[in-house]
Amino acid sequence: MTLTLVETAIAFGGEQRKYRHDSAVLQCEMTFSLYLPSNQAGKKIPLIWWLSGLTCTDDNFSQKSGFQRLADHYQVAVMIPDTSPRGKDVPDDEGWDLGQGAGFYVNATQAPWSTNYQMYDYLTEELPAIAAQLVPNFSGKESVMGHSMGGHGALVLGLRNPARFNAISAFAPILNPMQVPWGVKAFTTYLGADTNAWKSWDATELIKETTSLPILITQGSKDGFYEKQLKETTFLKNAEEARNNIQYQMKEGYDHSYFFISTFLEEHFAFHLSHL
Amino acid sequence: MTLTLVETAIAFGGEQRKYRHDSAVLQCEMTFSLYLPSNQAGKKIPLIWWLSGLTCTDDNFSQKSGFQRLADHYQVAVMIPDTSPRGKDVPDDEGWDLGQGAGFYVNATQAPWSTNYQMYDYLTEELPAIAAQLVPNFSGKESVMGHSMGGHGALVLGLRNPARFNAISAFAPILNPMQVPWGVKAFTTYLGADTNAWKSWDATELIKETTSLPILITQGSKDGFYEKQLKETTFLKNAEEARNNIQYQMKEGYDHSYFFISTFLEEHFAFHLSHL
Repeated sequence: MTLTLVETAIAFGGEQRKYRHDSAVLQCEMTFSLYLPSNQAGKKIPLIWWLSGLTCTDDNFSQKSGFQRLADHYQVAVMIPDTSPRGKDVPDDEGWDLGQGAGFYVNATQAPWSTNYQMYDYLTEELPAIAAQLVPNFSGKESVMGHSMGGHGALVLGLRNPARFNAISAFAPILNPMQVPWGVKAFTTYLGADTNAWKSWDATELIKETTSLPILITQGSKDGFYEKQLKETTFLKNAEEARNNIQYQMKEGYDHSYFFISTFLEEHFAFHLSHL
Repeated sequence: MTLTLVETAIAFGGEQRKYRHDSAVLQCEMTFSLYLPSNQAGKKIPLIWWLSGLTCTDDNFSQKSGFQRLADHYQVAVMIPDTSPRGKDVPDDEGWDLGQGAGFYVNATQAPWSTNYQMYDYLTEELPAIAAQLVPNFSGKESVMGHSMGGHGALVLGLRNPARFNAISAFAPILNPMQVPWGVKAFTTYLGADTNAWKSWDATELIKETTSLPILITQGSKDGFYEKQLKETTFLKNAEEARNNIQYQMKEGYDHSYFFISTFLEEHFAFHLSHL
C-alpha cells in the first residue's frame, strides 16, 4: 500500500494530517484527512469518523468546523474521508448532487458507476485497516458522525455495523433517501430502478431492524433543504416502533452551513465521548 | 449610501452577516463581513476589527477561524473588511502578493494604483461610519487584530490611531515591511521609490514614536515565511528603546495557517477584551 503524507500542521496541540493513497476498492487515487490528538499522557485513543455532505472533499470539515479544539480536548482521533471516488477516469455527472463529490456512501451496482463507486466497502474495509495503522495507541473504539449526505452515510454505516460503532450522530441528515429528490436521483443512478435494492441504504428502513445504538441528530429550523430533503417524521416513527432511542434536536434559526455545524459540534463530541 | 445584506447565518447564537456596498473611498463595489453577538442582556458592545492576509477576502476569517464562538462568549462585534479594492476596472497584478487581494492597508500615491488603493482611508473613515450604524448598542470602544499582511495592517492602523484603538494584536505579522521582499515590492509599487514615504506605513518605524498601547504578537516557529518576511528583531529593539510594552510569543511547531490562528485566537480575544 502506497500512503503519502501530503500535508501536516499542528492544530490545538495535535496534528492535522492529509494523506494520499491508491485505493484498491475505488480503483483511483484518493485523499483523506486525519487528526491525531497530542496524547501527552500516552493513553488509548478512540476514533471518530466524519462523513461530509454533497460537493465536499476531506477539506471542508478540517478547515471550517473548528473540530480540532474538541478532538484534542477529548483526546480522540478523527478520520475524514472524501465523499466519492475521484479523477478524470472516474465517471462523473454535470449535476453537483451526482457523481464526484456525491458518492452517497453506497456500493454502486449500475454501469458505469459500479467500477469506482464502492464507497461503503471503502469505509468498511480499506480505510479502517489504514486508520488502525495510523492512529498510535488506537483503543479500537469507533463512532461515526456526518452532515447532510454524510449524515445519511453515518446512519447507514452505523446501523449496518452496530458491533463496530459505539454511537452515531448527524447534522441535518438525509434520513429517508428513498423518499426525497437527492436520494431518488442518486439511488436510481447508482443502484438501479428496483427500489427493493434501495432499502439496505436507507436509515428509515434500517432503523426498523437495528438493536439500540445511541443516536443524536441535530437539525436547523431555517435549513433551506429541510422540507424537501431532510424531514424526520417517518424515521422517528419507525425508530419509536422499534424502540430505538433517538435524540432529535431542532435548533431555532440555524441553517445548513458550517456555522450551524460548528455551533453544535461540542454537544456532538460530548455525546460521542460518553460512548467511547 | 447603498448597503446590501447579501448573506446572514446564525453562528454560536449571534449573527454572521455579509454586506455589499459601493465604496466612495475605493471607487468600487466592496464586500465586508460583520459578526453581531446575541447580546440578550442588551449591554454595550465593543468592536474588534480583523484584517486578513495576502490573497484573502472577508470570507477566510469568518469561515476558517471559529472566532464566532469567542465573539459570542465575550459579547463583542467583529468587523472583517476585504484586503483590497476589487473589480474588473480596478488595477491588478499577476502576482498573488500585489494588486487585488494584496492592498497592504496603505493609501497608494502612484499611478495607476492611487485611484482605488486607498485602504487606509477606507478603514479609518468610510467603514467606521458604517460599523457605527450596524452595531446595535455600540460602546464606541475598538481594537484591531490581523494576520500576516493584516498583522502589519493592524499594527499600522493601531499605532497611527492610538486614541481610537484600545489594543492591537497580530498573528505572524509583517513587522518591518520596508526591509522584507513582500513589503518592498508592495511599497515600491503603491508608494514609489522614495523610501522616506514608506516610514509612516512601517510598524518598526511607528513603534519608535508611539505612546504605549497594549500589543500582543503570536508567531509560529515552523512558519515558512518567518525568516524571510516576518522577523521581529528590529521591531522589538525599537519597541524596547521607546519603552513600549510588547508581548511577543513564539509557539513551537506552528505554521502560518488558520490552524495556527484558530489555536491561539482564544488568547487574543481574552487579551483584547481585557482592554475593551
